[in-house]
This record gives sequence, structure tokens and C-alpha cells, in this order.
Amino acid sequence: ATPLRIGSQVLNSRLILGSGKYDSFELMRDSIEASATDCVTLAVRREKLNDSSARNILDFLPYQELTLLPNTAGCYDAVTAVRCAKLGRAILEGLDNPGQSWVKLEVLGNSRTLLPDPFELLKATETLVADGFDVLCYSNDDPVVARRLKDAGAAAVMPAGSPIGSGLGIANENNQRIILAELKRGDPDYPVILDAGVGTASDAVIAMELGFDAVLLNSAVAKAKNPIKMSAAMRLAVNAGRLAFEAGRMPTSAYGSASSPELGVISDRKLQDS
Amino acid sequence: ATPLRIGSQVLNSRLILGSGKYDSFELMRDSIEASATDCVTLAVRREKLNDSSARNILDFLPYQELTLLPNTAGCYDAVTAVRCAKLGRAILEGLDNPGQSWVKLEVLGNSRTLLPDPFELLKATETLVADGFDVLCYSNDDPVVARRLKDAGAAAVMPAGSPIGSGLGIANENNQRIILAELKRGDPDYPVILDAGVGTASDAVIAMELGFDAVLLNSAVAKAKNPIKMSAAMRLAVNAGRLAFEAGRMPTSAYGSASSPELGVISDRKLQDS
Amino acid sequence: ATPLRIGSQVLNSRLILGSGKYDSFELMRDSIEASATDCVTLAVRREKLNDSSARNILDFLPYQELTLLPNTAGCYDAVTAVRCAKLGRAILEGLDNPGQSWVKLEVLGNSRTLLPDPFELLKATETLVADGFDVLCYSNDDPVVARRLKDAGAAAVMPAGSPIGSGLGIANENNQRIILAELKRGDPDYPVILDAGVGTASDAVIAMELGFDAVLLNSAVAKAKNPIKMSAAMRLAVNAGRLAFEAGRMPTSAYGSASSPELGVISDRKLQDS
Amino acid sequence: ATPLRIGSQVLNSRLILGSGKYDSFELMRDSIEASATDCVTLAVRREKLNDSSARNILDFLPYQELTLLPNTAGCYDAVTAVRCAKLGRAILEGLDNPGQSWVKLEVLGNSRTLLPDPFELLKATETLVADGFDVLCYSNDDPVVARRLKDAGAAAVMPAGSPIGSGLGIANENNQRIILAELKRGDPDYPVILDAGVGTASDAVIAMELGFDAVLLNSAVAKAKNPIKMSAAMRLAVNAGRLAFEAGRMPTSAYGSASSPELGVISDRKLQDS
Repeated sequence: ATPLRIGSQVLNSRLILGSGKYDSFELMRDSIEASATDCVTLAVRREKLNDSSARNILDFLPYQELTLLPNTAGCYDAVTAVRCAKLGRAILEGLDNPGQSWVKLEVLGNSRTLLPDPFELLKATETLVADGFDVLCYSNDDPVVARRLKDAGAAAVMPAGSPIGSGLGIANENNQRIILAELKRGDPDYPVILDAGVGTASDAVIAMELGFDAVLLNSAVAKAKNPIKMSAAMRLAVNAGRLAFEAGRMPTSAYGSASSPELGVISDRKLQDS
Repeated sequence: ATPLRIGSQVLNSRLILGSGKYDSFELMRDSIEASATDCVTLAVRREKLNDSSARNILDFLPYQELTLLPNTAGCYDAVTAVRCAKLGRAILEGLDNPGQSWVKLEVLGNSRTLLPDPFELLKATETLVADGFDVLCYSNDDPVVARRLKDAGAAAVMPAGSPIGSGLGIANENNQRIILAELKRGDPDYPVILDAGVGTASDAVIAMELGFDAVLLNSAVAKAKNPIKMSAAMRLAVNAGRLAFEAGRMPTSAYGSASSPELGVISDRKLQDS
Repeated sequence: ATPLRIGSQVLNSRLILGSGKYDSFELMRDSIEASATDCVTLAVRREKLNDSSARNILDFLPYQELTLLPNTAGCYDAVTAVRCAKLGRAILEGLDNPGQSWVKLEVLGNSRTLLPDPFELLKATETLVADGFDVLCYSNDDPVVARRLKDAGAAAVMPAGSPIGSGLGIANENNQRIILAELKRGDPDYPVILDAGVGTASDAVIAMELGFDAVLLNSAVAKAKNPIKMSAAMRLAVNAGRLAFEAGRMPTSAYGSASSPELGVISDRKLQDS
Repeated sequence: ATPLRIGSQVLNSRLILGSGKYDSFELMRDSIEASATDCVTLAVRREKLNDSSARNILDFLPYQELTLLPNTAGCYDAVTAVRCAKLGRAILEGLDNPGQSWVKLEVLGNSRTLLPDPFELLKATETLVADGFDVLCYSNDDPVVARRLKDAGAAAVMPAGSPIGSGLGIANENNQRIILAELKRGDPDYPVILDAGVGTASDAVIAMELGFDAVLLNSAVAKAKNPIKMSAAMRLAVNAGRLAFEAGRMPTSAYGSASSPELGVISDRKLQDS
């Protein structure tokens, strides 16, 4: 498969995994391994690093082999999100990880829905772009907002399929189709990534079939009954969806359509002939 | 993955491919190879064997490595379908192929929709079961009909997702869930296979996530713009769906749900500590 | 609105109401009144007539003004259903109600899903048609079965939208469209009625927009929090759907389409002119 | 039905109709009459008032009996929209119409999709609220944007079901449910109106069943094959949906649920008794 370029980064896998919500660091580590991803996103905080047993997430992340994608989860305004992004950069510089140049920008509008606030998001995007970040914007599924974020210099727009952690998949395929058409018009390589809402493997396939460049997910794996197996499913799902998108699906019709009489037929002449 | 037992046959792949509707035998051959299937279904006819260039389908099918599944496509009544099934058995005996013991039983009710006729289907099933066939019944998505076919001794019930060649996927998930629950109640290994309607990779994933044991498809690959690539997509799709089914998906909720504060967080303490 | 002819009966309302599942006879009576229906269906039994207070359903049904439609609810085979239909005829003859000539034929295949058994249903239809009944067949949503019932002489075919009492609406619009097209090809006045599955007013509108001639429902009204109000909603819904079907809906498009510049505009010239 | 209060206006009908896109003024007039609406929205322009035959829209609108709702269709930034709103106010003052106090605020982000621009929309809302307008905001279906508009003093928020003129109905029911819950939490009478996307009667019913206070539509009537009949359908649809919402629908279940044995049953004892 073609590698995916996002700003200054290049990814081989089109599946980006979150690192939260797992029952344990071990489960996170094994799920990430099963996904074959080369990019994992982490929330940046000033304090937290260890779990309740004082263990460090970095001991469970093969971060030398991964591009870490710092995110600003939990920020509700542009100022806080910008500060958080810079902290992430500082941390990743300390780790010598290539992820220091980019950020998954989340600026939430509401703690109940965890949906993004387009107003603060646009402000933060402008500030971080000016500061040299590759900004990956977690956005709603509004084509106008998506356009504004791209125009503001976002390295990628990442519309939510449905609320974070809802598992509802892509709630509005029509909007996502419009976003993809609008952002890729005359710029087919501009990365558009589905971020949030994926609940199971078919959701990821549908996203890739629509033409998304990648899928970012967390709960679908972390909250599956068997996260490691679901992670393996997601690895195949993203590849299946990409291949199907590239292959170009058959047209649909309300009624059936019979097989040609020419092919796919075995007859008794074989016996008679031989 | 666990092999799938259907009557006396055992399959390693959960993707069964049709051999019709391809633009050429070469495309059929390469698509079958890309699918990694070990079972291909063929229509049985008294005359047809060669294409317009007098080439034989068997020259393009690695039938020594495949289990061939003869089907009674194009039959509209029980008598004709039974005769066709027996012809298929004779042909496959001649080829020394294990598929001689089974048949994909199609008895169509209507040439416009290609939907099965449950009345003639049940009659033909009873006759063929009595004659020792492993009968795989291509059926509608009615749970009562599915139950009657199983009770008549069908080795597998194969409900249509939507009309053959329509590419509409699974039109009625509720009925399919009921069929799966009813046929597998107290008999979890009884094979239920989605046959007809799959249009793209996500349809196959959804089928497997619902709990189908396998997916049988033809047009989705043969009529894709790039059949070989779509066949590769289907191979991954069926595996992704099976893994997701086994993994057990997360629950859904209308609203979002935030990441735990515990995990998936990177902080600047790492820097301070080191 | 055009009256609806079904066999020898003519109905002015296109809403047919069930009489079961209400919390009381009084609620049934008031709901029927609010619906403005002129046809109510009743289950026929050898014994039951009174409620636990020994009150008689007929004291709460204005049966002189209604056409009663006896149904064979609870029958699981053709023989029992035929016997039940004849009992219904005898009862309605005793009441001198025009409904004595017809029957809503239910032959169920399964007590869990309450889905019809097409095999026993077809047998019972043939018997009752030969005996002079106008047979309204409660069927599954299979176009082939629907065709066979019409060919057997059914006065109307009544496909289930989804299982009785499920409230899931029309689970498979594609099948229902095919049924309507197939049964009305060259015979546009042949009555096709949606029976079962309606859960709320929009389900009834969707059915009528698809081209069904009428909607038969029970639980949607009887199990609403306020049955009388829901019954009034259903009365409007059926009429709204019929009008929309006759009006012919606008086409859909993925993108928006602006208003013409010509009309729907008010300007300041009015002020300047006056 | 309860009248609907929006800012300083009170409406008896919960159907608001657009006046554009009709093939003629006569068709507009008759459709408005068939709808029984008491509120019609008009685009405001500096020049246009007459059609190509120099006839004036006001000669075809019974504007003494209607509340006119001026809209800012065709505006792409806050400054232009505010100017347009003020022009509308001036025009309606000249007509002595109560609609002078309010405006349907459209600020579009894109001429292809006609979707609103949340950034310019919020700015224009703030300006017009400060100027004493009752502002009805045509918005996207983002709960965060809806909240911001209400907080800015909008008299009503009017989310798009899908793009203007698309006829796709409500593309994202989950978002609309969240918007309704968020805007009406602790403020149940706050008006939330579905504006854009309705294509046929069932779309309007679904909107009202979700709990919208009213539906605003134009193309669904103007572009129906028979606009007058569709307008009559919409009148019933909005009332049916409102009644169903107030009635409270039955719960859904995957499986069927039988009628109670107690009620809805007729027996032969009636005959024996009499």
C-alpha cells in the first residue's frame, strides 16, 4: 500500500491508534502490537504519567519504533489547547520522537458529547500553524468547518464519524462524502482522516471505502471484549477498506442480475470429451 | 481461524467465490487466487463448458486444490433443480473432486429478482437430502423458511442479503439476526452463510460481525472495476469480520465517553524524572 | 380520497385497526373512534368474548358502523386457520356484519417471532378462496411468496414490515418496493396492505409513500403511552402518506440546490413604488 | 394544538413554508393556502420583486393574514447578512406586517452545498440580537454550534436536516436528538425548528416525532410533482408528527409480541348467548 504523508510525517499503516481506555498498560501494548500501526496518539498532561501502580506508559510503548502523536484531549478553549500542544512538543523532543512536530488538536465544546468546538478549534489551529506545528484537527462533520480548517493551514482534517466513545460509526455519510470531495478537489493527496465514532471493524471499512486516508480509533479496540483480537480485526479492516476503495465497487440495483451464461458454468461435456 | 465444517466438507477460508460474470477466464482465475478461497461455486449445465473461444473453464480453475461447489443456478422448479444437482455430482465425480457430495441449491421464483422460491426449494431440499446430498440452500431471509429448510436436513442455510447481483448488502439485519439465533439455538456450529447481495468489502464484514459462518459472493468481485484488488479486499474483509465477531464489539451510546484519566497520557514528568 | 376496494368490500379509511393489546375496552373504543377507521380486525376464538369483568367486546365496538375483519391470529397450521376463518364467518353472519365474507388470514410459523409460515399460509389461502372467502393474507415481505398468494386468489396481500409487535417499521424497503411493483404490474388496483411492524406515525407515512393501499396496525396505537392521541396521529399519518404518494416527491441530491432568483423574494422596490 | 411562541411571535401552525422555487406565483399561492400555515419566509433583496411578467409576489401572498419571515438567503458573510436583515425589517414595516421584528438568518459557507458558515453566523447573530431582532438561526446540525447560537441570544435555532434542496431528510438523527436535549434542558419551550432537507411527508413527521417544535420547508412542496397536494400532505404530516410525539411511541423489540388473549377477540359465545 502507498504510505500516507501528513505534513512532514509519513505513515505506513493507515490505522492510528489511541492509547487510552485500556484496562491495563499490558493490554494497550499488546493491542498496539496486534494493530501493526506505526502511529499512536497520547494525551498530554502536566502531571500524569504513571498508572496507580506508578508504572510509566512509556515502558509499555515501543516508542522508538512508533511516531507518537500528542493530542490535546480534555482542552476546552484555544489558549489551553495551544499550551498543551507546546507541552507535548517539549515532551517528545525529550524522547527524540519524530512526533514532536505535530499535534492532534482537540478543543472540545461540551463534556457530555465531547464534540469539538469549531470556534476555539479554528483559533487554536491558526496559532499552532503559525508556530510551525503540523496540526491535525479533530473536527465535527461540517464541510464548511472542514474547509475553514484546511484554509487555516491544517495538515489534516479529521472529522468525527460520531461522538468520541459512542461507537455509532459514521452517522452522516452524506456530509463525509462532501467533506472528502471538497477538501480533495484539486488536491487529492490532502489527508482526511476519520477520527471518532468507530465501534467495530465494519465502521473502519466503510470509512476507508468512502475515501478517507486513514482511521483513528481508540474505544473500539480498548472497549471490545477482547481488545487484542479487535485490534487485529482493525488492521485487516483498514486494509480491506483501502483495497475496496482502490478497486472501485460494483454499481447497485434494486433488482437482481443474473450470471452471464458464458462463464462460471461447468457442464457434462467435459466428461463426454475426455 | 477455525476451519468451517459444512456437512462432510471442511473449508479453511470463510469466503466462497462464484465463478460467473467475469469479463474473462483469466480475470476469474486471478481473482480466485487473490481471494485465497478454497471453495468455488459453478453453475451446472448440460451443454456449456467453453467460452466463445472454445476455452474450458476447468483450464482456468486450479480444481485439484479447490473444493468445487456445483450450483443449480437458473432452475425454476424442484424437478429441474434436482436433475441439475445430479448432473453436477456426475461431473464432479468425473473430476474426482470432493464437491461431488454437495450442492448449492438455487430454485428461483422470478427471473426479474432472482429471489428463491421457498416452496420449490423446500421440495428439492427434501428430495436431495434423501438422495444423500449435502444441500446448501440459497434461501430468502425469512426465519420461518430458514427453520423449515434446516428441519428438512439442509447441511447449511444460505440466506440472501439482498437480490443476487444487486450489491445492496444486507437489506434486513433484523431478520438475519433472528435467523442466526433460531438456527444456532442449541446448535452453534450449524453453518449459516450469507449468499447474495454483497456489493463491497464492508458488506462482507457486516455479515461476519453478525455471526455468519461464511460469505458467498460473486458480482461484488467480478463486477468491481478492479476484480483482483476487490478479491483481495474480500479476503481481508471476511477475516476482519470474523475476528471482530469473536472479539465482541464495544457497546454503543448516543453521547460521547471520555478517555480514562489514568492511561493513554504522556506528561512532562518523564522529562523531569530523567 | 378514493375509497379502497378489497374483494367485495369498500373502505373509506386507509387505516385498519386491530382491537387487541389495549389496557381496557374503553381505551380500545376511544382509540378506534379517534382513528376514524371504518374497519377493525378481531381475533376469532371459540370461547373468549368477555374480559375479566365479563364484559363483551361488542359492547365497546360500534360494529353497526364498522366492517369487522375477522382474523386467525394464533393459528399455526392451515387446518386450524381454515376452521377459525369459518367460525369467524359464522359469528359475523350472526351479527349481520359485512365482514362475514372476508378474513385476515394469519398462519404463524413461530411463536417467538410471530412471522407467518408461507407454506401453511398458501395452503389455507387455496382452501378459503375455494370456499368463497375474500382472503387477506398476512405474509412475510418476500416478493415470490407475495406473487404465489396473489396467484392463489388472495383478495389482498399484506406483507409484514417487521415482526408483529416489534415496532421496527419497514425493515426492508427494497423488498416492499419489489412486492408493490410485482403485484401491481398490469393490475394497479390490486390491494397491497402493510400489516405489522408499524411503531409510530412516520412508519405509516413511509408505508403509504411507498404505495401501499392501506396500513393495518395495532400495537403502535394500543401500546403508545397515550393510545387515543396516537390513534389520531395515525389517522393523519395515513392521509399524509397517501397525499404525498399521489403528489409525487421531489428528487434527492447529495448537495444543496439554491432557490431560484425569480420567486420567493421580497424587495424594497415595493416601498419605493408605493 | 398548543401555539408555538418564537421570541415575540406566536404561530398556530407548526409548518413554516418557503416561497421560492415554485413554477409560478399562482402555484405558490395555492400551495401556501393548502398548507394552512400562518408563516411564510421570503428572501430579501434590494431589487427583485416582480417575476418576468412584472408581477409582484405580494399580490399572491395573503400577507395581511400571514406573519412574513424575512430571510437572508444568498448572504455569505455577517456584514451582508446584517444589512439584508435590516432591509427586510424596513420592508415589513412598510407592509405593517408583524414579521418586521424577526429574521431567518442564513449565512452560507459554500454555494455548492448551501450549508451555513457557523463563524459568520455567530457574528451576525450577536449583531442582530444587539439590534433587537428575534433571530432564527439556520444552522448546521452540530450541538456545540447550536448551543453557542442559543447562548448568543438566538430566538430559535434551526438546524438543517441535510443540505437545502437535497431532499435527503434528517441525515443525522443522533445529532438532532442531542441538539434537542441540550437546548431544551431546563428550558423545554425553547424553540428548535428543523430547517432544510425535508423531501417528503415522512421526513416532516420524523422531525416532529423527534421533538422539533416546527418544520420549515420549501423545495419538498415547490418541487413535488403536484405541489398543492404535497402541501396538504405536509399540513397533515406536521400535525401527525406532533401528535405522535405527544402521545409517546411504543418501545421497539427485535422479535414479535403477541396480542393479549384477553382483548380484541370475538367468539361464538355471542351467538350462543343471544
